[in-house]
Amino acid sequence: MTKKTTIASLSRQIEEGATTSEALVDAALSAIAAGGEEARKTFTAVHADAARAAARAQDLLRAAGQRPSPLAGLPVSVKDLFDEAGHPTLAGSKALEGGPPALRDADAVARLRAAGAVVVGRTNMTEFAFSGVGINPHYGTPGNPADPARIPGGSSSGAAVSVAAGHVPLALGTDTGGSVRIPAALCGIVGFKPTQRRVPLRGALPLSWTLDSIGPLARTVACCAVADAVLAGEPEWLPPAVAPSGLRFAVPQSVVLDDLEPSVATAFETACRRLSLAGVRLTELPMTELEEIGAANARGGFPAAEAFHWHRALLEEKGDLYDPRVRSRIERGRTMTAADYIEVQQRRAGLIARTDRLSADYDALVMPTVPMRAPPIAAFADDRDFARLNMLLLRNCALFNFLDRCAISLPMQEPGDLPCGLMLVGAAGADRRLLSIAAAVEPVVGPVVGPVVGPVAD
Amino acid sequence: MTKKTTIASLSRQIEEGATTSEALVDAALSAIAAGGEEARKTFTAVHADAARAAARAQDLLRAAGQRPSPLAGLPVSVKDLFDEAGHPTLAGSKALEGGPPALRDADAVARLRAAGAVVVGRTNMTEFAFSGVGINPHYGTPGNPADPARIPGGSSSGAAVSVAAGHVPLALGTDTGGSVRIPAALCGIVGFKPTQRRVPLRGALPLSWTLDSIGPLARTVACCAVADAVLAGEPEWLPPAVAPSGLRFAVPQSVVLDDLEPSVATAFETACRRLSLAGVRLTELPMTELEEIGAANARGGFPAAEAFHWHRALLEEKGDLYDPRVRSRIERGRTMTAADYIEVQQRRAGLIARTDRLSADYDALVMPTVPMRAPPIAAFADDRDFARLNMLLLRNCALFNFLDRCAISLPMQEPGDLPCGLMLVGAAGADRRLLSIAAAVEPVVGPVVGPVVGPVAD
Repeated sequence: MTKKTTIASLSRQIEEGATTSEALVDAALSAIAAGGEEARKTFTAVHADAARAAARAQDLLRAAGQRPSPLAGLPVSVKDLFDEAGHPTLAGSKALEGGPPALRDADAVARLRAAGAVVVGRTNMTEFAFSGVGINPHYGTPGNPADPARIPGGSSSGAAVSVAAGHVPLALGTDTGGSVRIPAALCGIVGFKPTQRRVPLRGALPLSWTLDSIGPLARTVACCAVADAVLAGEPEWLPPAVAPSGLRFAVPQSVVLDDLEPSVATAFETACRRLSLAGVRLTELPMTELEEIGAANARGGFPAAEAFHWHRALLEEKGDLYDPRVRSRIERGRTMTAADYIEVQQRRAGLIARTDRLSADYDALVMPTVPMRAPPIAAFADDRDFARLNMLLLRNCALFNFLDRCAISLPMQEPGDLPCGLMLVGAAGADRRLLSIAAAVEPVVGPVVGPVVGPVAD
Repeated sequence: MTKKTTIASLSRQIEEGATTSEALVDAALSAIAAGGEEARKTFTAVHADAARAAARAQDLLRAAGQRPSPLAGLPVSVKDLFDEAGHPTLAGSKALEGGPPALRDADAVARLRAAGAVVVGRTNMTEFAFSGVGINPHYGTPGNPADPARIPGGSSSGAAVSVAAGHVPLALGTDTGGSVRIPAALCGIVGFKPTQRRVPLRGALPLSWTLDSIGPLARTVACCAVADAVLAGEPEWLPPAVAPSGLRFAVPQSVVLDDLEPSVATAFETACRRLSLAGVRLTELPMTELEEIGAANARGGFPAAEAFHWHRALLEEKGDLYDPRVRSRIERGRTMTAADYIEVQQRRAGLIARTDRLSADYDALVMPTVPMRAPPIAAFADDRDFARLNMLLLRNCALFNFLDRCAISLPMQEPGDLPCGLMLVGAAGADRRLLSIAAAVEPVVGPVVGPVVGPVAD
């Protein structure tokens, strides 16, 4: 499988008889097997036999004229926090080892399988999804495919790598504070975080059920749109062709442009210039409300409170098996009072109302997904550096989990450069509208991959 | 106004020209003025001039052929925790005295006024709505109209008394753990607690926004149904005639029948016998899940956590002005952790799912509203007695706030006896269905008041 293969092209090749699901799945399994140490750190489990059997079943269905969705027969990866019937769900931790296998698939996994997707394996992640870095001391840290000495981003680290390294055309991830978008941006692919309530969470090990959302990582916006329709339980759908000309984007001037790495600032300026040339109207929006979100989350916010509630008993029993950097973040929830928690809920409701009004006149907000390119893994050796860099990695993305939006990260680096991402943020529930807009601007801002939708600028 | 006057009969008298809104409102104001000390403890404010002006306006509208609803021109009372533009909202407390008047009406009050109701005054209540007793050390305790030496029940104490004493045909109350149904039961009237989300809470001083619901107290089920449609923002509606024969009721055998005062047990047995004779099929349902609710709320549950969040700053500043019995209950929320609070939410979700399944085969659950008749005010002198009796007063009602149901209390005492109530509990969102069922059984189980709907048993 080449790195530029899209779901549409693979699906077409199967339809035309140019390949089979079995061949595609075999190729994926072979690539993983040939990937050595990096692949071993990317996949915490590979379901070779089950995947081959499922692929053969899809080929038989196709021969019988049945094609449940454009994902039918395609190899996909699943983040290690989703239940798969018969497999233990470890969520990148050693504390859950030895537990019982899941009795049934998570809803999201069940929908992928019902759509004909073939799960080839489970992807590594930040332990319990609790950082944006992707470093995992238990199962190893998958290197960034652009430079294996650099972090992949997290928490859906293996998910992003499994796509960026060309193992699979689609990975299933989760995003509580950026865990789909950050690794997508740092690995140079597309990551879509739907509105929180869009995809059912049942069978996904929770970090924060207030904020947890389930989304795809793939090569293109169209790939993400196909997967999103399946995950949301909606009929097959592709973003209609929207012209970038006339779209109105707002660039928030608070928080999200602070402390940009110079090369990211340059890439963002270039992307904005290209958008303008393509006819997008860009407006600088003060949006000082974004500055209040950090204070509202000062005690750790929903993730700390809700993760501590979930982990309370497990910490008691097996806390010493946790990555101390994960454990310390969960422990912040221990001292949060009910009134503090309620206060976060109330402030959030107010901030959502105020920022929704502010952005109602724009088709999307636009900003860098992450203020830096992937730092070297070695830069995280010191705990204070880890904390500082992690906060910076999460900063822009997490704002929009808090504000209950949908968002997508698109590659915006120049060919050959380390990846960085452009984030578009839409209104809650307007997921399809955001995907349509993203498909329109995708060829304008980024390296051209896969089939081009709409005009290419420059 | 006689004690048996219903909204339908008053509305008809206005329509037929037999009376006017001005006459009805004047009569209500005169009755309150003539009511002396008891009326002064029932109403914390009387809006004589504004009410007379509003009544004249309704009479002019009627002369112009306009009748916004069956409530048009009728005097109503409003619990002291609802904002009324231009009046301070004190919620039965001294800690809010001297604050600014409300800038606009609470949504529920605005809907009543838009329907043509005339607010004659504000009714006394348990301070901040935080007990089921109705004792208020700041503004006095309205005596039970059946025996002024006995409690009225609470927290909507003045609301129930304003109807039971014949001042108004309708009172607006709130119910977080029984605050509409308990005083309705103890004062011998009907009290309807809708599903929590049915009536908007804006402008009502919160006790627990998870549980707070807004409902009417009135003479009959039909009166409550008329008011409920207005409060829910729905078109005029009256319960259709439903035959009791063939209805299926379940009698939970856990918790709600424990420690019944013998006379209440007898009245409940009589009510069940009458229901059976009228063709209702009664089934004993173990429903041991109800026993888990007390443990889930062991630390004070939503009211303690959410009230403490709201009161935190006010307690700091004016805590010494609170009734110590109210303050101590709010203070329980201070030490509740975020994880405790989340635990209550999670257990609640599980218990709702389990009990919804159990009761799905029945038209309603049925039980005594309160396990006792109104105790003497003197029985609450000791703090421990207060705590014990308060818990018992709230017990049955609060279960169904926790389970997110709608519920209604109907009088079931024999004529001349101290009042006691029969509670019917419906499914979440099935408010109209419950009102229809309650209208069918109302003449079967209780003293006949107002217009009779359906057959009368015995």
